[in-house]
Amino acid sequence: MRLQHATWQEVEAYLAHSTGIILPIGSTEQHGPNGPIGTDSLCPEAIAWALGERHGVLIGPTQAIGMAQHHLAFPGSLTLRPSTLVAVLRDTIESLAHHGFTHVFFLNGHGGNIATVNAAFAEVLAERSLGREAAGELHLRLFNWFAGRRGRELAESLYGEAEGSHATASEVSLAWHAAPQTVRDVILSPRLAPTGSAQCDARTFRRRFPDGRMGSDPSLASAEHGARFLEAGVEDAWEAYQAFVTDR
Amino acid sequence: MRLQHATWQEVEAYLAHSTGIILPIGSTEQHGPNGPIGTDSLCPEAIAWALGERHGVLIGPTQAIGMAQHHLAFPGSLTLRPSTLVAVLRDTIESLAHHGFTHVFFLNGHGGNIATVNAAFAEVLAERSLGREAAGELHLRLFNWFAGRRGRELAESLYGEAEGSHATASEVSLAWHAAPQTVRDVILSPRLAPTGSAQCDARTFRRRFPDGRMGSDPSLASAEHGARFLEAGVEDAWEAYQAFVTDR
Amino acid sequence: MRLQHATWQEVEAYLAHSTGIILPIGSTEQHGPNGPIGTDSLCPEAIAWALGERHGVLIGPTQAIGMAQHHLAFPGSLTLRPSTLVAVLRDTIESLAHHGFTHVFFLNGHGGNIATVNAAFAEVLAERSLGREAAGELHLRLFNWFAGRRGRELAESLYGEAEGSHATASEVSLAWHAAPQTVRDVILSPRLAPTGSAQCDARTFRRRFPDGRMGSDPSLASAEHGARFLEAGVEDAWEAYQAFVTDR
Amino acid sequence: MRLQHATWQEVEAYLAHSTGIILPIGSTEQHGPNGPIGTDSLCPEAIAWALGERHGVLIGPTQAIGMAQHHLAFPGSLTLRPSTLVAVLRDTIESLAHHGFTHVFFLNGHGGNIATVNAAFAEVLAERSLGREAAGELHLRLFNWFAGRRGRELAESLYGEAEGSHATASEVSLAWHAAPQTVRDVILSPRLAPTGSAQCDARTFRRRFPDGRMGSDPSLASAEHGARFLEAGVEDAWEAYQAFVTDR
Amino acid sequence: MRLQHATWQEVEAYLAHSTGIILPIGSTEQHGPNGPIGTDSLCPEAIAWALGERHGVLIGPTQAIGMAQHHLAFPGSLTLRPSTLVAVLRDTIESLAHHGFTHVFFLNGHGGNIATVNAAFAEVLAERSLGREAAGELHLRLFNWFAGRRGRELAESLYGEAEGSHATASEVSLAWHAAPQTVRDVILSPRLAPTGSAQCDARTFRRRFPDGRMGSDPSLASAEHGARFLEAGVEDAWEAYQAFVTDR
Amino acid sequence: MRLQHATWQEVEAYLAHSTGIILPIGSTEQHGPNGPIGTDSLCPEAIAWALGERHGVLIGPTQAIGMAQHHLAFPGSLTLRPSTLVAVLRDTIESLAHHGFTHVFFLNGHGGNIATVNAAFAEVLAERSLGREAAGELHLRLFNWFAGRRGRELAESLYGEAEGSHATASEVSLAWHAAPQTVRDVILSPRLAPTGSAQCDARTFRRRFPDGRMGSDPSLASAEHGARFLEAGVEDAWEAYQAFVTDR
Repeated sequence: MRLQHATWQEVEAYLAHSTGIILPIGSTEQHGPNGPIGTDSLCPEAIAWALGERHGVLIGPTQAIGMAQHHLAFPGSLTLRPSTLVAVLRDTIESLAHHGFTHVFFLNGHGGNIATVNAAFAEVLAERSLGREAAGELHLRLFNWFAGRRGRELAESLYGEAEGSHATASEVSLAWHAAPQTVRDVILSPRLAPTGSAQCDARTFRRRFPDGRMGSDPSLASAEHGARFLEAGVEDAWEAYQAFVTDR
Repeated sequence: MRLQHATWQEVEAYLAHSTGIILPIGSTEQHGPNGPIGTDSLCPEAIAWALGERHGVLIGPTQAIGMAQHHLAFPGSLTLRPSTLVAVLRDTIESLAHHGFTHVFFLNGHGGNIATVNAAFAEVLAERSLGREAAGELHLRLFNWFAGRRGRELAESLYGEAEGSHATASEVSLAWHAAPQTVRDVILSPRLAPTGSAQCDARTFRRRFPDGRMGSDPSLASAEHGARFLEAGVEDAWEAYQAFVTDR
Repeated sequence: MRLQHATWQEVEAYLAHSTGIILPIGSTEQHGPNGPIGTDSLCPEAIAWALGERHGVLIGPTQAIGMAQHHLAFPGSLTLRPSTLVAVLRDTIESLAHHGFTHVFFLNGHGGNIATVNAAFAEVLAERSLGREAAGELHLRLFNWFAGRRGRELAESLYGEAEGSHATASEVSLAWHAAPQTVRDVILSPRLAPTGSAQCDARTFRRRFPDGRMGSDPSLASAEHGARFLEAGVEDAWEAYQAFVTDR
Repeated sequence: MRLQHATWQEVEAYLAHSTGIILPIGSTEQHGPNGPIGTDSLCPEAIAWALGERHGVLIGPTQAIGMAQHHLAFPGSLTLRPSTLVAVLRDTIESLAHHGFTHVFFLNGHGGNIATVNAAFAEVLAERSLGREAAGELHLRLFNWFAGRRGRELAESLYGEAEGSHATASEVSLAWHAAPQTVRDVILSPRLAPTGSAQCDARTFRRRFPDGRMGSDPSLASAEHGARFLEAGVEDAWEAYQAFVTDR
Repeated sequence: MRLQHATWQEVEAYLAHSTGIILPIGSTEQHGPNGPIGTDSLCPEAIAWALGERHGVLIGPTQAIGMAQHHLAFPGSLTLRPSTLVAVLRDTIESLAHHGFTHVFFLNGHGGNIATVNAAFAEVLAERSLGREAAGELHLRLFNWFAGRRGRELAESLYGEAEGSHATASEVSLAWHAAPQTVRDVILSPRLAPTGSAQCDARTFRRRFPDGRMGSDPSLASAEHGARFLEAGVEDAWEAYQAFVTDR
Repeated sequence: MRLQHATWQEVEAYLAHSTGIILPIGSTEQHGPNGPIGTDSLCPEAIAWALGERHGVLIGPTQAIGMAQHHLAFPGSLTLRPSTLVAVLRDTIESLAHHGFTHVFFLNGHGGNIATVNAAFAEVLAERSLGREAAGELHLRLFNWFAGRRGRELAESLYGEAEGSHATASEVSLAWHAAPQTVRDVILSPRLAPTGSAQCDARTFRRRFPDGRMGSDPSLASAEHGARFLEAGVEDAWEAYQAFVTDR
């Protein structure tokens, strides 16, 4: 069930038997010459929606803009400052906790969000630990779909080293499967993009990674692969969500 | 063209001939017994995507969570504090301005956002007016799809007074058209919801409006009506956008 | 009774029979060649003080600086960032609520404040709706003196289209009546100022409105007119305040 | 000249020969059984307005609400959080600096503001020292009217130890002179209020100082004394302002 | 006892008989040609650690970076913005209050911190006074070691006017005693540094005080003097702390 | 060279040949029954000071309080909210960048800091990527001493699984070596603490980990081991720092 498609009475009924929710979070940033700018949102969103359909878990709205300051030298990339994203996640979690949700699971598609999401969790929990907030049970979890075991194994088997670390073949495949209109046939040069650290400002990032890719060859991507990554991602995420909501 | 589906090179090419962009903004909040929680996002999103397809204008990602504190007594409603939403819009606009966008047009589906969006515009412009920010051209506009002339006339002709002001027949129709899986057949009691002010806290709001509707009878809604509201909304919004980008 | 002139025991006594208060809010910004910079504060302040004298309602201190970023290209204009004004209003309202005031009525003289004041109301109410704040009754209202029915009719009858939308003949009249030392005899050229949108940065505003006026001919203003606007404003505001405090 | 009463052209002309300005800052807080709640604003405002009339210096709007958290257990007291007041002063100073003012002199009536005003000065200057702000000349000064030499000597001669440190005989006298309608004839018991520290929360403050006075006997106050304090204050403040604007 | 060296069980035991704590706070900023950059932290830290050893009072970690924006034109100086330091002190105090500490005593080595520390105290107390925070007893005190009576007398007797107000002979002596590796033998020119106000930006500060000293001749300093300042400081601070924790 | 012990002229000289600096960052939080509360600061501080002595690299002041909200149910633990720590690091880095430092290396002792430190880096870099900040070269790196290869191997060889993940045998050893007065002889029960996730509020953390340890048996710790961890840590950190400053 998607929260956007439910009525409030349906959410009320859902809460009577489950207090867990999954929220996709991604980014709006360049993904090289053949990956769509929304890749990091499209991927976790596709997995989350499949989870909602198959398992009946409630899926919240997608946070489509993430922390992507290092991509700003490429047109179309958007960023929230970390402090802004912390505030967004704090308000979202507080709203959910107010309704009685106790397990909030963020299904993430963007490595650049990891630090900020974890900082946001700590920001919310600190209010409780300092005693400034009523102390109802609240559990928070970040799961990166791209780091799931099955997805990793599939990427390794399909691409080996050419998977890379940004604008990867796996995420471009999944984005293409989720949104077929985003398939692009582009010659990549060089085939394998350079590697290095992304912890830098946007100007430095573009100097290091001229077309936006990091270590990847997404010309290997295909929508067909994407369908398999979707299945792997759904299984990885469902396993992680199940462990989360059953562990006290 | 949707930003999420474009590559950065395509955005670069777009910027060579246009520096305007449309961003849908809505809310995640109860819409009465038969309206989906995502109504206020689904509506402007549907209009914006149609604009993107028909006119080639670039459509940014949807801001699905808005300022909806007064709806928090109904399960599933989410809110950003106004200060958080100001920060989100500031970072989004600054990112776009950094790439050279000069005309940022927010297509809004939620009355509760209006004050905060306008405050956010002033927050961004103040940095320029105080001389703390490079002074490139930047124009900002908020357009509420539900206040467009054609849409208003259609609602008047179809529903008269039963349109109401929240969980209206028109927006439920458009949401149903945009997301047919959200159609619900629910008996509303009373048919016409009470009227009053929404400028209050959530507890007071629920006391005033027990099932969430304000003055409306959305049992009159239909997906067929929604298709007509989409057309009206596309024409209203396109007219407004054209006036915005051509007026200096 | 003006809060500034009362002792704390007198406020304590007032609270025993009324928990409503009126706070004037304005701006410090250019008002064209013959209007004082304090126009937007002088006007609601004069109306509020008359209300205090005639009806015994408690009048708080005037917030003399508002959101006026678009006027900063004219010497003497001051602005608070919207986020700052939100914080000011939040602290003011929280202080009043702490003493038991339940109805806080802002009497506003500046269109540029409207969005931010409403965002501030939502910021305060969100804390209550999220359950982070003790949930005593709290009602907030913004009333723009310049939009009252009687005042509008008087302006229409005296000036017609020459009233304009900034540095209007009506507000200059009322400011002159409230502070006779501000009367200026200035030749305006052109008589009727250009019209347009004020939602822009300061440089753009000054380019659009070279002497600061928007669509107005305040050479029609007079202190005598101002006395009549005071009466109209007092009646409009009192009616609105009465409706506010008696409506639950 | 008062900024509120000037036109923008008059401010432009003023700036051609002086770039200094005086801003009164006070508080809205209890001042014992016979002192008005606005005492701390009325006093510096009266002195500032006299300076404006006698010496032609430009006088900005009064900041009527200050940092008064410790007075909140007495009805009618309002406070800004220190962080809010810092933001207000930052925006005010940045607006003035934008117009070319180089010497901003705050004439203060409230001891509780001192720390926060100085912190605000440092907040503004830090942006310049860190190189994040254009480095035009900017000088900031806080002057407490109640600490001026002439005023101190007059208080000593009139009241000796009975002057006290809050709701003092001198400030009540000056407030009564500035606003004759605030004169109250109240029996104080005990004549001399207890002494102690005000650096505490509001509950503790009220326990220490049951009627709000600190160490004072303001039954000694009179409007006639107030006229003399006004003269002393004008001379003290003018001397300080002159030293400020002439010292580089 | 130093908090850094204790186990949590030892702190638990300490709280059973005392709820007071001392926290050194200083700065990291230039101290002229022969004073170490850490002077303002080394001095209160040395005094605090001696208090901990001699009297068993708990000593928290040193806040080594303070508000030093005016020193930023000298290499190595670091500053926190006042708003940042307020947040640091707020979180630190809230953490301590959460554990049951009721008397938090800051032993300060830097004049530039005074305003901000006092503003931070008010920021914390305001939450309690507004009723947004549980109202357990909480007392806060700032003590400047350099303003203690015994220390002042010793400096007067040793250096007279050559003590100065920044990079003073007394603080350099104490720093040298606390950290003997910081002793420097430098020819100062002029012997006595110029005097003036430090309330300015960094560029202006350096123009006024070319080598960083203000009015001082720290060539008079010696580690031997430092040992005497340590004794004076310990006595001054202990007296102040005792008065603080026994006064309700 | 320690910044606290240097004069500004010495820093100026240092900058002529190196623009890199190392800053220790830790936490003030419980470390079980035999580990000092300052463990996470004492460890990186000891390594950093050794680096300063052996290699001449400049060592900044230690950030002793980190993000430790989950430890607040144990007396003596202090936390900064993530948003506060972000502000502290931002101001510290901006101060250093202002002086011309280009490579800022944080030597961290606390896993709970990792997310927030990385978010802070992004917060600083975002200003540059958005073009709001002059774009001088700036490189930021976080190195966790406890994750260095040599240290990991030593811990594995000495403790195997009994190393654990909080209040580990290795960090207690190093803290004891760095501060011999912190050695405690305590019977631990059970010898091996329970394991689990630390991403929770303080109440939950204490329920999961009753004496504060996570998976460790620090009764195996010794100051002698600590001397070996210091050597391993110095080599690990120096290697990482060298790679950082030489990689463009």
